[in-house]
Amino acid sequence: MSLQRARDLDRSDPLGELRGQYDIPSGTVYLDGNSLGAPLRSIPGRLAEVVSGQWAGRLIRAWPEHWWDAPVRVGERIAPLVGAAPGQVVVGDSTTVNLFKSIIAGLRIGAGRGRSELAVLGDAFPTDRYIAVSAARMMDSPITTEITERTALVLAGHVDYRTGVIADFAAITEQAHDAGAVILWDLCHSVGALPVELDAHAVDLAVGCTYKFLSGGPGAPAFVYVASALQADYDQPLTGWTGHADPFAMTEDYQAAEGVARARAGTPDMLSMLALDAALDIWDQTSIVDARAKAQQLTQFFVDCVEDLPVTVLAPDPATRGNQVSLRHPDAKDLIARLAEQDILGDFRTPDIARFGFQPLYVSFEDAWRAASALRALLST
Amino acid sequence: MSLQRARDLDRSDPLGELRGQYDIPSGTVYLDGNSLGAPLRSIPGRLAEVVSGQWAGRLIRAWPEHWWDAPVRVGERIAPLVGAAPGQVVVGDSTTVNLFKSIIAGLRIGAGRGRSELAVLGDAFPTDRYIAVSAARMMDSPITTEITERTALVLAGHVDYRTGVIADFAAITEQAHDAGAVILWDLCHSVGALPVELDAHAVDLAVGCTYKFLSGGPGAPAFVYVASALQADYDQPLTGWTGHADPFAMTEDYQAAEGVARARAGTPDMLSMLALDAALDIWDQTSIVDARAKAQQLTQFFVDCVEDLPVTVLAPDPATRGNQVSLRHPDAKDLIARLAEQDILGDFRTPDIARFGFQPLYVSFEDAWRAASALRALLST
Repeated sequence: MSLQRARDLDRSDPLGELRGQYDIPSGTVYLDGNSLGAPLRSIPGRLAEVVSGQWAGRLIRAWPEHWWDAPVRVGERIAPLVGAAPGQVVVGDSTTVNLFKSIIAGLRIGAGRGRSELAVLGDAFPTDRYIAVSAARMMDSPITTEITERTALVLAGHVDYRTGVIADFAAITEQAHDAGAVILWDLCHSVGALPVELDAHAVDLAVGCTYKFLSGGPGAPAFVYVASALQADYDQPLTGWTGHADPFAMTEDYQAAEGVARARAGTPDMLSMLALDAALDIWDQTSIVDARAKAQQLTQFFVDCVEDLPVTVLAPDPATRGNQVSLRHPDAKDLIARLAEQDILGDFRTPDIARFGFQPLYVSFEDAWRAASALRALLST
Repeated sequence: MSLQRARDLDRSDPLGELRGQYDIPSGTVYLDGNSLGAPLRSIPGRLAEVVSGQWAGRLIRAWPEHWWDAPVRVGERIAPLVGAAPGQVVVGDSTTVNLFKSIIAGLRIGAGRGRSELAVLGDAFPTDRYIAVSAARMMDSPITTEITERTALVLAGHVDYRTGVIADFAAITEQAHDAGAVILWDLCHSVGALPVELDAHAVDLAVGCTYKFLSGGPGAPAFVYVASALQADYDQPLTGWTGHADPFAMTEDYQAAEGVARARAGTPDMLSMLALDAALDIWDQTSIVDARAKAQQLTQFFVDCVEDLPVTVLAPDPATRGNQVSLRHPDAKDLIARLAEQDILGDFRTPDIARFGFQPLYVSFEDAWRAASALRALLST
């Protein structure tokens, strides 16, 4: 694995030309796009248009003209990335908030089937677990770690945020359905990283994050997927006015909108949402299949570069490895800090994991080689 | 009430020079800043700095360097506007979401006092009522309209969104406390419009909106106030990782942060939050007392201009009128539409209210005169 080999791979990379559309400081190796995606160069111009053209130019009229439908319209742009037919994805609020909506809604569907248990599988991201505990407390639901005939709802994460291991999406979904439970997938580390097939597996509910592989911006709004078949029963607790069937009637009683719009809550944060909208333009120029193919090459190249180093590669099998490589080493925290001094940015996850994300639309093979070389130098001193 | 008189008032207006800092199309009379505040001219530049300087320039490092503390830091800039000492206000999520957090937290405090009733006073904004119903359903709390010795929590709105009437803040707060209940104020139509004295009245909880009188931008994040004395008992249900005592430890169990930071939930929408931060700069150049004084002059001038027209002025008493004038007329919807054709922007609220907001930092007496004159012309044809 040589620099020459990396440069050859970059020269023959059909996605290589997309990198120039991202604004990354020259000389920086950015391997933390699985935490905060790098910005598209188009975003400042788009925000200026939103503020000066729409907000200042049209004032309150911009709401009906440009903004009201944005949560659904931007959701439709994410839908193809997660294998969802139209009418099932809506953008808004944080992942935390969307998890809460969907766990409560899922437990209510389960209650209608005479079930109350909430199964939280694997090493869920802390927020997922915290919100599961909070929702279960409010619904008097026991939390379990196994799917049984008492399970109302299964909460599972598609890609483990620490190890990068891809869960067996098809098998877990099938197991939940065979047991008569509703399944809720957390796609935070898979959306924009690898193909997700929600409709094909008849998934019920999903939530995901847009500021990682989708480069939506810091704290960009999350999304919710509610399968068409379940929408009439999706009874979520954050009954804000924008999820109402007739929001401007300002009626006494809440009546949920038809379709996935009922997952909306309060007034959506439009500047953050329209930056995300701009970031999604890149997907008009490539596909998630091509992006995943390059990411698999990239992560394997990086693994090959570090294979003789005294680190443990978590998720060694490329077939079940997300677009990240996690290395276990007792000095992981210090290693990440020392790489950052050289503008090679990964991140540390407690207690001993050095984590490197490979967003294939802007990470090059030379980036991977440079990160591995710097790591080699640090570990040999 | 003549155009000459309006121009004289504008010439002697000490706040008149602030208007130039807002980006409002020439020729537009903007009387809907109580729905969506007009933008400061500084916002596009600030957003460009956030995207290019912070997000692109620092990538993931921008979180600790610039963003992590923003919800608390921006909250501290709002605190003086609502009469709050430091450490009690945090920004993030929508008003809807913050109402949910605070209603549940308030009901839990009430449960500790052996009470379960939720009193929703007056003509609450629809979302407030919808969320109250949803929260009460989850907590098995009866909803009432009166404060009694069984009341756990009182939810009240400071300024009525339709009529513009200011509630008796001191009396209602005292009544709630005398009954042993927790009080939660909705400040959406009062923050940035008139002085609010949360600490002076020992208010327990409050939420408010930043995209109306504070010009934070479309869907700008809302804020929560939790009085210091109540913070240890503020047990809110949206237990996202940013409200954790040690967010990056990623511990198994949720432990709420000390202080008002426990009202945080998921990752905050930073672009929208930092546009709000820029908008708050205007308050370094004036005070809420001066702004309210001009707003009272403005609304009274407008009322005087329309007093002989066949409309009913809701909130006729200037002492209990917010920074808006609501006029009842059977053709209100059509009147608002025809004014908009002349770039005079108010809004319609069902069934028969024409609503005009007066944000004194950018609305002039001439604006008020022009709106009243156009209304006169429409009503005389």
